[in-house]
Amino acid sequence: MKKSLVALALTGTLAGASCGVHAQSSVSIYGTLDAGIANRSGPNTPTVVGKRDNNKLGFRGVEDLGSGLKALFQLEIRYEPDTGTIESNSRPLFQGQSRVGLQGDFGTVRLGRGLTAFQETSTGYEPWSGMPAVAGYQTDLQVAGYTSDPLSPAGNSLNRFSNAVFYNTPLIAGIFQLNVTVASKEANNNPAIIGRGTALAPQFPANSQAAVVPYSVSATATQGKFSAYAAYERNAVDTTLWSVGGWFKPIEPLKLMATYQKQDQEESVLINPETKGWVLGANYVLGAGLIRAGYGQKRPDNQFNDPGIAKTRQYSIGYDYNLSPRTYLYADATRKKAVTAFNFVSVGIHHNF
Amino acid sequence: MKKSLVALALTGTLAGASCGVHAQSSVSIYGTLDAGIANRSGPNTPTVVGKRDNNKLGFRGVEDLGSGLKALFQLEIRYEPDTGTIESNSRPLFQGQSRVGLQGDFGTVRLGRGLTAFQETSTGYEPWSGMPAVAGYQTDLQVAGYTSDPLSPAGNSLNRFSNAVFYNTPLIAGIFQLNVTVASKEANNNPAIIGRGTALAPQFPANSQAAVVPYSVSATATQGKFSAYAAYERNAVDTTLWSVGGWFKPIEPLKLMATYQKQDQEESVLINPETKGWVLGANYVLGAGLIRAGYGQKRPDNQFNDPGIAKTRQYSIGYDYNLSPRTYLYADATRKKAVTAFNFVSVGIHHNF
Amino acid sequence: MKKSLVALALTGTLAGASCGVHAQSSVSIYGTLDAGIANRSGPNTPTVVGKRDNNKLGFRGVEDLGSGLKALFQLEIRYEPDTGTIESNSRPLFQGQSRVGLQGDFGTVRLGRGLTAFQETSTGYEPWSGMPAVAGYQTDLQVAGYTSDPLSPAGNSLNRFSNAVFYNTPLIAGIFQLNVTVASKEANNNPAIIGRGTALAPQFPANSQAAVVPYSVSATATQGKFSAYAAYERNAVDTTLWSVGGWFKPIEPLKLMATYQKQDQEESVLINPETKGWVLGANYVLGAGLIRAGYGQKRPDNQFNDPGIAKTRQYSIGYDYNLSPRTYLYADATRKKAVTAFNFVSVGIHHNF
Repeated sequence: MKKSLVALALTGTLAGASCGVHAQSSVSIYGTLDAGIANRSGPNTPTVVGKRDNNKLGFRGVEDLGSGLKALFQLEIRYEPDTGTIESNSRPLFQGQSRVGLQGDFGTVRLGRGLTAFQETSTGYEPWSGMPAVAGYQTDLQVAGYTSDPLSPAGNSLNRFSNAVFYNTPLIAGIFQLNVTVASKEANNNPAIIGRGTALAPQFPANSQAAVVPYSVSATATQGKFSAYAAYERNAVDTTLWSVGGWFKPIEPLKLMATYQKQDQEESVLINPETKGWVLGANYVLGAGLIRAGYGQKRPDNQFNDPGIAKTRQYSIGYDYNLSPRTYLYADATRKKAVTAFNFVSVGIHHNF
Repeated sequence: MKKSLVALALTGTLAGASCGVHAQSSVSIYGTLDAGIANRSGPNTPTVVGKRDNNKLGFRGVEDLGSGLKALFQLEIRYEPDTGTIESNSRPLFQGQSRVGLQGDFGTVRLGRGLTAFQETSTGYEPWSGMPAVAGYQTDLQVAGYTSDPLSPAGNSLNRFSNAVFYNTPLIAGIFQLNVTVASKEANNNPAIIGRGTALAPQFPANSQAAVVPYSVSATATQGKFSAYAAYERNAVDTTLWSVGGWFKPIEPLKLMATYQKQDQEESVLINPETKGWVLGANYVLGAGLIRAGYGQKRPDNQFNDPGIAKTRQYSIGYDYNLSPRTYLYADATRKKAVTAFNFVSVGIHHNF
Repeated sequence: MKKSLVALALTGTLAGASCGVHAQSSVSIYGTLDAGIANRSGPNTPTVVGKRDNNKLGFRGVEDLGSGLKALFQLEIRYEPDTGTIESNSRPLFQGQSRVGLQGDFGTVRLGRGLTAFQETSTGYEPWSGMPAVAGYQTDLQVAGYTSDPLSPAGNSLNRFSNAVFYNTPLIAGIFQLNVTVASKEANNNPAIIGRGTALAPQFPANSQAAVVPYSVSATATQGKFSAYAAYERNAVDTTLWSVGGWFKPIEPLKLMATYQKQDQEESVLINPETKGWVLGANYVLGAGLIRAGYGQKRPDNQFNDPGIAKTRQYSIGYDYNLSPRTYLYADATRKKAVTAFNFVSVGIHHNF
């Protein structure tokens, strides 16, 4: 407020449209703080303090523009509670998302950075709700090892488009929705990627523009006990992925899930460019608790030329105990086997605010 | 709150003056999210997602101390919505400003980091309201290529003082205001600047103290249809700038603007140390819209020793369509010609919260 | 809000426990902005803009879970107001703390990153209230030169545990409290530390796991005019510290303080591994003002093998003038002598929000 008064006094007037003054706050603060204690089998693996979910501190708002039109924005910080750093100590400040747009009868259109249509849709069909838990499947098997953003800076995340337009239709007939994300080809400070080139002449030199326009499309249909999705995505190095999945609630407390996905990296990988993954999952509500279970496979991992060796298998079981609608305690156990195997267990607390 | 209870319990008591406990929140959150789609002419220039204005997420407050005295603070994050990073992926977290101070009959005095008196004043006389739009003039022609902070870290912005004291008089006789910014000479981790030295003996080695005390002064006079300013600034490498400008509203919806500025870099530049710039601009309110237009020149750019070659010319036209007092859509087109020329067009959405 | 609606529409449903939707905001924003002008004696020491206290922007909340149980979280950004950067331009975004936990009859248990039990307790017995003021004693003499986190990244702070569990008992019999912090041994990207090794074979290579489990314990007893504490801490390189201290209020406005601490670095330092420090302090409330005074010694500093040379002595006097319960002006003066001596004076403003 003060700043504005000084600015007004300084300059006599300000063009209203570019001025930050307004009558009332229109910002909601929200977030998640999830921290736990975990142990992974193997040599030299001390018990650690870690997380099951992404940790968020976000700011968002909706402005009613009249005639059914709304302006909306969202900024979401991601961080690591065990060390206090931004996510992975390397990602953008607003790693979660930074988007602004309009919503109306036509649906929702937004500009900025966020999860792609495929990545956002698929979280609803994964037994750990898309959380990046070690016991969960979202970041590896659920996407068949695919990354949405291979030309991003080192240490960046794998499931977002920067410099993108995001469109969601409204819910059609109460059942269907279509979601589209298209990114620009602009360079984004990637490190060099050798790909099908050589160390001296990498296929993608540092700070490359995208080889193709990256895009992502997903469609969902949900009615009563059933829901299904189909998605197709192409990233900046022309890797493509398609995925289908669904859930079914045979009885109210039980949600059964299944997904299948296939990644094709033939434009940038010489050996085993195709990866296939599938995941089966279940959620069961039991009183104040939620039981999570899953099994999945992925093969071959393209780092190896023997498909038999590279097959990844993962079994997981988890439990949430709700202390309130905002807070729960959890325990996870998983076994994941690729070339080598490890077991992982964790307990923790998950708090939304 | 919790923290404080624990802390109190831990230590038995706390000196009230250094403790964060208080009865009620006194913080306003505000900000801007501006994103658009833009294209620049030339080879290898894909359509990009960019911005017209600075993007802000700020926190500020005013505390009434009684007897007309107020304490005030402001912290402003700047960020890039297309990638989610902090501004330019290199600037301070609170790039916008971080200041605390007092306001009373004597005016406003603040300590910290913020726009210099000249830079803040001049935004009110620029046809794009001081926004860093490619179509706008603020960051180049409006300041004759000058930078307020040449001894700052690489990638930093060009228009602020760190380690500074900011003073604004109250509005005098309803017409006049004087603004003064003075910075300390302390070093701030600049990379080496060769200047009038050599690569082996740069004029300003890395992490140099300022050669002189940087300061900035601006004065404004505003009455009815007329406003004018004059400003003088000296930065840490003893470059000086003076600038004058004014606006005139012949009819209510029309604001005509003109500014002139001259930069003298003779203390750190050997060839063509002087740069002169001028800008003419107009804003016209048309219903819910605002038309922006401008023309400006700058010469010579000191990178070249032929003034004829180095002359910069820029023509711009823009349009804001207000969806509400807080949200507008915009379109800009500009042509800028220095040694080479480019055209630039953009459309986008600007949302204040 | 918007995000959630879109997400719901996209996926049909979301597991309630992992979803960010909730009815009302539960976040308090708080902070401190402290900035001043300071001068240190010696050659090449310009007057600077600096700080007396840590600068904070925090987010915290408490959720009542019923039956006396509460969930609580706290995230605290630290920053430098003179340049707008995060603290020291190198520390974690949430340098202050990032913790989540539960509070009940059993006390408070939290997970994440924060001050150790010793470091948090000792601030209440230091004449500058634990502020990192140059005139204060907290960061050097109050801890006998000890660092809680030697295996943290370069530029990190010295008084916190990452990857830790924090437990505080309730206040027992209205008098006693026990506080325990235990950290994991996980590596945290430290640079190599030679220690008792060699440059080629450092005792702690880069990204080392802790040699021992770091922990910190403190106990306090407070009744009426008296308070005392005892603390013991061991860090990741097996340096240990013990400390005792107390305060006494002979008359209401006067608080007298004394502490003694001894650091033992024999596991990582060859010469003079022991350091002893003591601090005497007083706070005196005088109308709207607070007078602070202190004297302390530390010896030997282990960088030198002549204890006589390495003795550190510091004298300080300070004054706070409260403009309100949230805002005060201050002045400090100190003289500190180790191998060389310097004087330091500062004046500034401290504003809580």
